[in-house]
Amino acid sequence: MIDTQFIEELASKAPTPGGGGASAYAGALASALASMVGNLTVGKKKYAEVEERVQAELIELESTRHHLLELIDEDARAFEPLAAAYGMPKGTEAEKSAQNEALQAALVDACEVPLEIMVTCLEVIESCVFMARHGSVLALSDAGAAVVIAKGALQAASLNVVINLGSMADEERASLYRGQMEDLLAAGNSMADEVYADVLERLS
Amino acid sequence: MIDTQFIEELASKAPTPGGGGASAYAGALASALASMVGNLTVGKKKYAEVEERVQAELIELESTRHHLLELIDEDARAFEPLAAAYGMPKGTEAEKSAQNEALQAALVDACEVPLEIMVTCLEVIESCVFMARHGSVLALSDAGAAVVIAKGALQAASLNVVINLGSMADEERASLYRGQMEDLLAAGNSMADEVYADVLERLS
Repeated sequence: MIDTQFIEELASKAPTPGGGGASAYAGALASALASMVGNLTVGKKKYAEVEERVQAELIELESTRHHLLELIDEDARAFEPLAAAYGMPKGTEAEKSAQNEALQAALVDACEVPLEIMVTCLEVIESCVFMARHGSVLALSDAGAAVVIAKGALQAASLNVVINLGSMADEERASLYRGQMEDLLAAGNSMADEVYADVLERLS
Repeated sequence: MIDTQFIEELASKAPTPGGGGASAYAGALASALASMVGNLTVGKKKYAEVEERVQAELIELESTRHHLLELIDEDARAFEPLAAAYGMPKGTEAEKSAQNEALQAALVDACEVPLEIMVTCLEVIESCVFMARHGSVLALSDAGAAVVIAKGALQAASLNVVINLGSMADEERASLYRGQMEDLLAAGNSMADEVYADVLERLS
């Protein structure tokens, strides 16, 4: 039986979980699938030479999986002050100023949480690269499936950074975040594309 | 609270849920996120003109979401006879022949279920296109996040078709399935890439 509570909450008009939570959840799915590849590899004679590295990667994947699940809640928490700030009155100059101050403070977390989701999705992609190269060949399609889901999660999280950067007044900070986002995206996309193409070729 | 049972089962060495189940689950996440966009659009004066179409799209999305969740179980059911066939003895010619017959029969479902996951992910992508174009602009990043997750799910499911096509003896059937898979992939990738680029541009 599949618990569909998260999926039904995501579908509802409640703003959280939203794109951030969905991207973290998709990243956790990818991480779990990469773990399956590792778990189908350990203890097999054929893969004895990489046993230790697979074990280490499995510990890493357990950590990224749990971290991504935590980030679903963190994303929802970061949204609360943002929604509150967007809802503040803007009638007088004093109100406008207070609203903007609250908004700018809230935008920092609202960018940093999806950036952390991206960092963790990139770690998942790196683990998928390892599993596609060194994991059991019987689970090669699963390593490939994990990497394309992780890439989707990475790109999805990046859109949550982009939308919040758009309202950020502190240009220096915005530029820093934009640079981090672009680097994470470029690294993840290129690694994922390479592994996907390689898996496709080896399966065909 | 997030129920992590599915994710933990996915991470285990049990072969199901595997790549097929994970792709269906990721597709369901994308479908749910697209529904959120629709649910944030209906009832708003600004979007009164598209209200009926959004309502129709929401019914469609509820159907694809539930279908994808069912396909997780169907994928696991399709794997059982496949695993059984791979495990049959191949000592004598008679055994080899019986094994091959069981394997070939099992491969049909093992291709058709991920193809059905792909068909349904393509429907999700089409709904995401609609939501990105006509849904509330306040949820534009969510429509974009949904489409990239759905694309990852589509590609992940395609790898499960590919791996099973590799063992299929009936070349005519294999060629039919391969053609369907390539068409679904081409259509989904191009639609998703276009929407993602459009969302990025409008958010930046």
